[in-house]
Amino acid sequence: MNIEMIRAAAARIQGHAVRTPLVRSGFLDQIAGRRVWVKPECLQQTGSFKFRGAYSALSALEPAVRARGVIAFSSGNHAQGVALAARMHDTSAVIVMPSDAPQLKIDNTRAYGADVVLYDRETESRDEIGAQLSEERGLTLVKPFDEPQVIAGQGTCGLEIAEDAKAYGIKNADVIVCCGGGGLTSGIALALEADAPNLRVRPAEPAGFDDVARSLTAGEIKSNPAKSGSICDAILTERPGDMTWPILKRLCGPALVISDAEALDAMGQAFLNLKLVAEPGGAAALAAALYRADQIEGDDVIVTISGGNVDPSMFSRALERL
Amino acid sequence: MNIEMIRAAAARIQGHAVRTPLVRSGFLDQIAGRRVWVKPECLQQTGSFKFRGAYSALSALEPAVRARGVIAFSSGNHAQGVALAARMHDTSAVIVMPSDAPQLKIDNTRAYGADVVLYDRETESRDEIGAQLSEERGLTLVKPFDEPQVIAGQGTCGLEIAEDAKAYGIKNADVIVCCGGGGLTSGIALALEADAPNLRVRPAEPAGFDDVARSLTAGEIKSNPAKSGSICDAILTERPGDMTWPILKRLCGPALVISDAEALDAMGQAFLNLKLVAEPGGAAALAAALYRADQIEGDDVIVTISGGNVDPSMFSRALERL
Repeated sequence: MNIEMIRAAAARIQGHAVRTPLVRSGFLDQIAGRRVWVKPECLQQTGSFKFRGAYSALSALEPAVRARGVIAFSSGNHAQGVALAARMHDTSAVIVMPSDAPQLKIDNTRAYGADVVLYDRETESRDEIGAQLSEERGLTLVKPFDEPQVIAGQGTCGLEIAEDAKAYGIKNADVIVCCGGGGLTSGIALALEADAPNLRVRPAEPAGFDDVARSLTAGEIKSNPAKSGSICDAILTERPGDMTWPILKRLCGPALVISDAEALDAMGQAFLNLKLVAEPGGAAALAAALYRADQIEGDDVIVTISGGNVDPSMFSRALERL
Repeated sequence: MNIEMIRAAAARIQGHAVRTPLVRSGFLDQIAGRRVWVKPECLQQTGSFKFRGAYSALSALEPAVRARGVIAFSSGNHAQGVALAARMHDTSAVIVMPSDAPQLKIDNTRAYGADVVLYDRETESRDEIGAQLSEERGLTLVKPFDEPQVIAGQGTCGLEIAEDAKAYGIKNADVIVCCGGGGLTSGIALALEADAPNLRVRPAEPAGFDDVARSLTAGEIKSNPAKSGSICDAILTERPGDMTWPILKRLCGPALVISDAEALDAMGQAFLNLKLVAEPGGAAALAAALYRADQIEGDDVIVTISGGNVDPSMFSRALERL
């Protein structure tokens, strides 16, 4: 896992992934007490950064292997990314999704042409379901974060942040990244280490699912006791990945932990002041910038809005709080 | 009014206005039956394209004139554009707004530092109020559309569309533009005439306020009987402007007329599939692309989302229809 893999992934996804800008609003700056720059990956293909990693992984497969099809486990954003990337490579995708995933994510994954297999999070093992399907059909598993070509794809987001930060003269900023298994966070961290070493990555997590925060504090991997119970569905993982953790440990500053209510409030601020649709997990980093300002240093903060795949009913909850 | 004024405006706004991309979604293509490219001016400074014209006009004033301050009449988007452009030029702005303008637009105009004067649309004359204030304080009026430097500023949006259409290989597309007084529509039409003559501008208007549609059909200026009664507040004007009309007449194809319900549905589609917040008037062109497909030719259509300044309650109405 190195910077050259990220640069190679950037070359492969060019013209297929959206090159997202940095956007901002003076009103957000007032709340945060500093300049807030937003990387809107909700505008990415399939509505989240996950498309970057999925396309990177699919495009790196041997054509004969890829032609047999791929399989992925995902509550939704990785699912959609793999589904569209598979379609763009003229191959098939089976996506194993928990039955309590947001309906919009299930519907969209099917609409991108994938074969969706639902399972019960509490009583069934997705690994067993997946292993059986892989064996039967010769499918290649595309892991959501513990996979070098996926991390390389997510890292392309960091290359763009570094490029734009240089263009805007941003120095010494914290870069807050919505963090689940750590694929996006570790990919961005590697890209910034190479291209913008003055920018420091800070993971953002929801309370109760702050495994990376506690792992960074302890210096070793810590797990979350619960598997569900936050609205931030996109970033609920049990623990940092075996491949992402060493990168997070080496390169990230302290993580920031926000509440579900703060995620909703950040969604409302993105609606009002950025005209962007963020999903709860995708708003975690913005929430940290706005409501954990005392834990941040520097005149600038850069945050990812990592996804925007939110059901209307959940978005209404954010609007009602405004 | 010529293309050189638009290019000069582009040079003045560079680094101050957002250079918005073209974005798209395969799901919208399916509804429209062709490729739909979206120019998201909701991501522009102040949440609408109006900032382009306002900044262009303010930056073109003599410094001594500008220092005395400016005044504008607006239901909201021009108001916010002028307010922020004035602040960025270190001068003051008085904005005369109807008291029934969306609360978000009134609040934001004040938050950008303008002095907001409210008037009753039915019983008071904004022109009298404005004339008195201008005389007392020596303010310069920044008209919303019948002003060459404002049209030039809006035209910069057309230069960007032409540039991106070329990069994406888009040929012979209809370019549908949300149309009130015709400032954006005429500015884009002039830019495309110069830089992308194969792209044809089509104004989009709400039913009951289709003055441009009827004017284009008649070959002469027609007015709307009503002053209010559509949720598309941003594009309700009595008639095309004296300066914009000859340009519209010379360069635009037939206008497309959509209903308020279709504007809400287009807002829902922008939420679901683009992760963008559109206001009703800002969704008119997208509504035309999605729901008037039989009146459009070609494999591609380009639409503006001209603004995203919508109150949460109105946005909820769009979400409830999904």
